Amino acid sequence: MTETVVTKKTLGKAIKAASKAVRENNPLTPSITNNITIDFVANTQLAVGGSAAMVYMEEEGKIMAQIADAMYLNVGGLIPLHLRGIVGTAEELSKLGKPYVLDPVAIGIGDTRTKILSALKNTPPAIIRGNASEVMALANLWGVMGQASAESTVRGVDSTDPVEAALPAAMALAKFCNGAVAVSGKVDIVTDGTTVVRLEGGSQLMASVTGFGCTLGGVCAVYLTQADPFTAAVAAVAHYNVAGVQADKTAFGPASFKVKFIDALYNTKAADLKKAIASVETIAEESAEESAE
Amino acid sequence: MTETVVTKKTLGKAIKAASKAVRENNPLTPSITNNITIDFVANTQLAVGGSAAMVYMEEEGKIMAQIADAMYLNVGGLIPLHLRGIVGTAEELSKLGKPYVLDPVAIGIGDTRTKILSALKNTPPAIIRGNASEVMALANLWGVMGQASAESTVRGVDSTDPVEAALPAAMALAKFCNGAVAVSGKVDIVTDGTTVVRLEGGSQLMASVTGFGCTLGGVCAVYLTQADPFTAAVAAVAHYNVAGVQADKTAFGPASFKVKFIDALYNTKAADLKKAIASVETIAEESAEESAE
Amino acid sequence: MTETVVTKKTLGKAIKAASKAVRENNPLTPSITNNITIDFVANTQLAVGGSAAMVYMEEEGKIMAQIADAMYLNVGGLIPLHLRGIVGTAEELSKLGKPYVLDPVAIGIGDTRTKILSALKNTPPAIIRGNASEVMALANLWGVMGQASAESTVRGVDSTDPVEAALPAAMALAKFCNGAVAVSGKVDIVTDGTTVVRLEGGSQLMASVTGFGCTLGGVCAVYLTQADPFTAAVAAVAHYNVAGVQADKTAFGPASFKVKFIDALYNTKAADLKKAIASVETIAEESAEESAE
Repeated sequence: MTETVVTKKTLGKAIKAASKAVRENNPLTPSITNNITIDFVANTQLAVGGSAAMVYMEEEGKIMAQIADAMYLNVGGLIPLHLRGIVGTAEELSKLGKPYVLDPVAIGIGDTRTKILSALKNTPPAIIRGNASEVMALANLWGVMGQASAESTVRGVDSTDPVEAALPAAMALAKFCNGAVAVSGKVDIVTDGTTVVRLEGGSQLMASVTGFGCTLGGVCAVYLTQADPFTAAVAAVAHYNVAGVQADKTAFGPASFKVKFIDALYNTKAADLKKAIASVETIAEESAEESAE
Repeated sequence: MTETVVTKKTLGKAIKAASKAVRENNPLTPSITNNITIDFVANTQLAVGGSAAMVYMEEEGKIMAQIADAMYLNVGGLIPLHLRGIVGTAEELSKLGKPYVLDPVAIGIGDTRTKILSALKNTPPAIIRGNASEVMALANLWGVMGQASAESTVRGVDSTDPVEAALPAAMALAKFCNGAVAVSGKVDIVTDGTTVVRLEGGSQLMASVTGFGCTLGGVCAVYLTQADPFTAAVAAVAHYNVAGVQADKTAFGPASFKVKFIDALYNTKAADLKKAIASVETIAEESAEESAE
Repeated sequence: MTETVVTKKTLGKAIKAASKAVRENNPLTPSITNNITIDFVANTQLAVGGSAAMVYMEEEGKIMAQIADAMYLNVGGLIPLHLRGIVGTAEELSKLGKPYVLDPVAIGIGDTRTKILSALKNTPPAIIRGNASEVMALANLWGVMGQASAESTVRGVDSTDPVEAALPAAMALAKFCNGAVAVSGKVDIVTDGTTVVRLEGGSQLMASVTGFGCTLGGVCAVYLTQADPFTAAVAAVAHYNVAGVQADKTAFGPASFKVKFIDALYNTKAADLKKAIASVETIAEESAEESAE
């Protein structure tokens, strides 16, 4: 995916171009997501320049798969309808060769969620977005790390593991999906299995508002309509970090932060996204294979 | 419905009276609507002076039909429960001789939505609120234009047709329902099948926030408890346009616009609603019949 | 529960300690609640210092009961799934000896809600939070007042009874549950069946935003993880009143009030909660028994 060497400069250009493309093309990016943050997901997708359409039923998920260029699937707030809704939509996307973003939120909680996430291994996403614990748990569930299982615990929707602990799991998942994985934390990581990008910015207030994880997944999907998975994930995470810094400057608390954050997503200049990229590192193939086998 | 000639002056007075009545009576206006914008619908209904109650099940929809003077039915974000929930509630309202507002959002997407909208032809709404494409598609689905089918395409929840293209469909639907149709766009149209009102104002930012269509339908229903369908639809659309202009003045982006918009709905003076009325036109009966037959 | 005499001073200290404990421990407080205000519930729980997790299915409700120290159950916006979801979760909590907060919103509307609320009598909540009409209707449904049934009417989600009219019902319910009841109104009442606390503050704008009742229940549950039911209910109601006064000072309408209110929840000092306590009264055992029998 990244045959030429990726640098901060080339990556900065790529995500700038992705942001411009999103704003020019206003891509329809449908989601099956939870009801807790569904309005926030749609509004962030719109704020970065996309168009949103939220569905629940397999019937509608499949139609959306046909209409759109990428989708967002999130396993939060499950009802039984989601089992076939999410899995059937992923199957349809796979059949059509179209990519989707997966947020494995709350992985480990309940049989329905486990059934859905287990099934999705057969039609892997192009981008996985989660916190450290979720990414490690998904790597375990899918058995992509062989013996080197990633010990992790999830408490509801909160991560209990540091971001760096999830790096091997993230790299293994990215290779398995032939896509990208974004791990959210104080410093965010995005990897395609070879290159590891660390991104900084955001705000402490993000932890005091529900949905910053879910909505980032939705924005990854918007970018995924206009760029390869790795570039799309970096662009979305960068956009969140830059907007978060901006919103933090004048927020009085979590709710004004949320308002200012969406405004900042809307107003952030494409050329400024690169500011969030702290480092770009290419991991030697051997060491990556070690951790994967 | 409008035997005397409607003018900007008479209409301005009528919508001012409707707004005052809403604020005095705080009418309960229940909805069956989608989960994406359900909180926004309730909050706009409260902001204009109504009281909200959101239900899902047929059992509860029918109880609400008995308690309230008008309801709001929106076919977005469907789950199977909505099929009988929406259709059964419309049947109950029809039996009781009570009006409802229909938002045929995303018409054309999926069999469940088509089944619901097809069934609703038997118990027509008093007000239809949609974008140009949705109104044209509904006129086709219900066959109210005879041969003159309205060519339209819907992309998810976005209109792909200009508002004026939907005028014949809107007029035919309004006549069929013996009610009113509101078509949302850069310039909005409200018609009862004879009189055509064009309304201006609002803000470009409305397109960057999810739910301005859904919530307008909910506010139409609040007004419908206190006025005839045509007056109610004009009042609601006018209220949105005036509040949109006000909110736009100090918004920094879509999220602050949404906050300021709801505040503006709350603060708009009844006497100012008329400012949104750009023109009032009465279409000769013959030409209307031509387009309807 | 309150063997020593409760005074404004002792209560002020207790709720200050509860608020500090919440902020230190960031307790996970899962909810089964309605989709209308689900995002608002989660965000208020986070704003006071808790952690939120929203579920729907019995399967997930039971897992949450095992993980968490207290939960929030709200019967608004029902779908059939809620019947076992809410009742099964309450059964699991009861089996585990863990407390929950109940919001009997819209009690009286529909058979499903009545079935749920009737069943919950077998596994009573530690805190009930409702408006006057809801509290009176629940006391009647559960038959906790014997002959002295509380006449009340509910209009959708709005109370039609004054708060003081619900005092006997609230005291009887609190005794029955061996917990606390919070009745919301212009002046709020919290009682454990013996002591009656009246709290003041808040804002008229609370009535123009959907969810101030639902979210208060969710915040009661957060406090319930760190304090006894009576202290938890007083702390939550006090927090709402103090934050409401603060937000009211600079709000322009209902939406900016909501934003400022959540910010104020986040910023309110634990030591300031006591300001909302207007009076603390201990009702002689005899008179309480009179009203209960």
